[in-house]
Amino acid sequence: MPQHIRFNAFEMNCVVHQSPGLWRHPRDRSADYRHIEPWVELAQTLERGLFEAVFLADVLGVYDTYGGGPQAALRQAAQVPVGDPLLLVSAMAHATTHLGFGVTVNLSYEPPTTLARRFSTLDHFSRGRVGWNIVTGYLESAARAMGHDRQTAHDDRYDMAEDYMQVVYKLWEGSWADDAVQRDAAAGIYADPARVREVQHESAFHRVRAVHLCEPSPQRTPVLFQAGTSPSGRAFAGRHAECVFISGPSQAVLAPRVKALREAAEAAGRSANDLRIFAMLTPIVGQTDADAANLLAEYRHYASPEGALVLMSGWTGIDFATLDPHTIVRHVQNEAGRSAMENITRADPSRVWTVADVAEHVGIGGISPIVAGSPSTVADALEDWVDKTGIDGFNLAFAVRPESMLAVVDLLVPELQRRDRYKRAYTQGTLREKLFTQGAPRLAPPHPAAQFRFPD
Amino acid sequence: MPQHIRFNAFEMNCVVHQSPGLWRHPRDRSADYRHIEPWVELAQTLERGLFEAVFLADVLGVYDTYGGGPQAALRQAAQVPVGDPLLLVSAMAHATTHLGFGVTVNLSYEPPTTLARRFSTLDHFSRGRVGWNIVTGYLESAARAMGHDRQTAHDDRYDMAEDYMQVVYKLWEGSWADDAVQRDAAAGIYADPARVREVQHESAFHRVRAVHLCEPSPQRTPVLFQAGTSPSGRAFAGRHAECVFISGPSQAVLAPRVKALREAAEAAGRSANDLRIFAMLTPIVGQTDADAANLLAEYRHYASPEGALVLMSGWTGIDFATLDPHTIVRHVQNEAGRSAMENITRADPSRVWTVADVAEHVGIGGISPIVAGSPSTVADALEDWVDKTGIDGFNLAFAVRPESMLAVVDLLVPELQRRDRYKRAYTQGTLREKLFTQGAPRLAPPHPAAQFRFPD
Repeated sequence: MPQHIRFNAFEMNCVVHQSPGLWRHPRDRSADYRHIEPWVELAQTLERGLFEAVFLADVLGVYDTYGGGPQAALRQAAQVPVGDPLLLVSAMAHATTHLGFGVTVNLSYEPPTTLARRFSTLDHFSRGRVGWNIVTGYLESAARAMGHDRQTAHDDRYDMAEDYMQVVYKLWEGSWADDAVQRDAAAGIYADPARVREVQHESAFHRVRAVHLCEPSPQRTPVLFQAGTSPSGRAFAGRHAECVFISGPSQAVLAPRVKALREAAEAAGRSANDLRIFAMLTPIVGQTDADAANLLAEYRHYASPEGALVLMSGWTGIDFATLDPHTIVRHVQNEAGRSAMENITRADPSRVWTVADVAEHVGIGGISPIVAGSPSTVADALEDWVDKTGIDGFNLAFAVRPESMLAVVDLLVPELQRRDRYKRAYTQGTLREKLFTQGAPRLAPPHPAAQFRFPD
Repeated sequence: MPQHIRFNAFEMNCVVHQSPGLWRHPRDRSADYRHIEPWVELAQTLERGLFEAVFLADVLGVYDTYGGGPQAALRQAAQVPVGDPLLLVSAMAHATTHLGFGVTVNLSYEPPTTLARRFSTLDHFSRGRVGWNIVTGYLESAARAMGHDRQTAHDDRYDMAEDYMQVVYKLWEGSWADDAVQRDAAAGIYADPARVREVQHESAFHRVRAVHLCEPSPQRTPVLFQAGTSPSGRAFAGRHAECVFISGPSQAVLAPRVKALREAAEAAGRSANDLRIFAMLTPIVGQTDADAANLLAEYRHYASPEGALVLMSGWTGIDFATLDPHTIVRHVQNEAGRSAMENITRADPSRVWTVADVAEHVGIGGISPIVAGSPSTVADALEDWVDKTGIDGFNLAFAVRPESMLAVVDLLVPELQRRDRYKRAYTQGTLREKLFTQGAPRLAPPHPAAQFRFPD
């Protein structure tokens, strides 16, 4: 039986996430990001569409590579303004029963004890539906906002992250025993203190002596998301991640990345199937192929080349404002920017890509591939991506909010269900149990979190 | 016309806030603190009762003074486990229209940029109903959890807080001009970059270069709550606070504290009436005086002397576990513990207070006075407190969740309304406008925040 395809919604608490300029579309409601009501409606829509989770991106600084300052980012609302993503969750969790929440939180600027408490609190509120997208940041502007001269170097950030994971595992898995909470009114014992212990951690990065402030939540450690595709990122994912978010312009590019990730899991003593891999993709679904083509043309009309280059500059470190639109991008790649550029140019390696081409391409759905068509056409394409690359599903980016996701839920999901390539109901249990059919609410060996469990 | 009395609900995202042991009461639902549904119901109850705000306390460590470890605190669930209070707000805000949210966040362990973003995000979500209770912490265990050997000294913490306020004012008030956000779809301009600036701050405590990540929220700076009564705390409140939370065992103790606070505001160039002062009080309201007396007796049956002493030990720094219950507390006061102890013993200065007496007293409503009686009796008492002390209202602690607050809303509020001592409807506007009749959504001169505004 072919596997079911899994969907996350790729979202961000901001105006422009991956489709710069589209906030100007007459039916777009992106500027309402700052109110809570549209988020609650989105959560209900996604749950109606049996999505695994809403995946919330985040940044802690502004995109100021383009033009050497934040001006263009502000003009375009390119991921600025941006609100805290964790603060969205309780309202969305209260309005839903099954939908998961994968929330990006940067570990570079927050003590592990308070970060651990935030996720435990949300895991309780959502009854076990929260995930953490582990990031260390990529914006120099965020480092400066936090009082640093510059970011920690890329590979050192992974050392720091590795250490940070040990601390939060100790807090989540090791501070309270399963039977610590007794809630024994007759005996007057809420928690048995013999079954709770202070976590101790001393390293070059962190020195912690703390009882985890939260009692055990349904999942303990939230479902761990990760998005790195560099060698260190892939090794980190192999050790820690349960869900990996990747992007690639073609099946030919994506398939080896998927394979490398699953091998990284095996190299870390886990199974290839311990990873759920989601590829970024932007679906434009219409009633017919012609409708979808019209929609895409209409969307393109609102896309902003400047906004696209602001984002690209931030991702690659190349200041596209200094380049003539006719410049051929093959000649301007730098080492830092190489993989993001390749994510575009390798979509069609025979093509000569100019800066203007890149700007147009990134204008809808960022660097992700766009699939436009009738439900049947898009379903064909998605089945093909899954079957040819070994991914488990998609992080779906939107062009117009909430129209793009409504079309997925109302048109595409029923088509995939008819093909038996999409579930017809949620399974019970936590997000972890929903993602892994044989799963338990908690991480188990050989995942490294399990070694920090409170001893029996 | 006598002034209307204002109510906040004094709450905390934990099992035992101020009434240790009461979680064992058959009608108490405190152990459900970890779920979101009871919080949403509470918010709706408080809004029905026209409360100003739910005031959420917080700690970042465990109470481990009693017995020299966290064991008794865990057994009693004395403010541990405790969840993050900010994460409650979006669900409660979504379910209400007028209720405010005063959230305790410790500034000692978080960069000002991310704290500022959290409050701006919630101010947007709640459409201007968020407040920040500024604290620097009092638990050594929190310092250790954050990697410090010990807390910063008390007065140094206020220097640090003073500097921190400058940074967050710059971010909230000074990074974006009022007219920065244009949302001009035709021109393709979301924000005018000429009307947004990078905040710069360099001090012994913080070095920040950052554009505030959020566009201007309705209140910009959240309504500022503060709770210090030490000389440095009072001066800080005089400069910054809009709402002050105090506690005192008697009108005789409270009145001079209120006067000193209003004088501190005047000394800072503000008006005495620029402060809304809320005193902590625990009301036990029944249909009749006899009903209330029975309720109180029933509640006392469940109160935990050990839990009470765990809290008192944390607040005073005195390890009550080392003291015989018959010890007379006058002989064991230390400097750090003096004011908290006085908050109890001065309730009845002629009485000789033993450790056991303190434990009993603190068992319901912590160090706050208890007022038990029929709606008429409690209303008489509350009017008297307000008229004799100059406070604006009360931070109401609960004995049993949610029963205590339901009794206030259903019995006490209507009685106060009949006396024209309580509003009959919310006024429109932000929390700040509701609290200050002549108010505007934003802080204005001479409040220090106003001097950081984006120049016209």
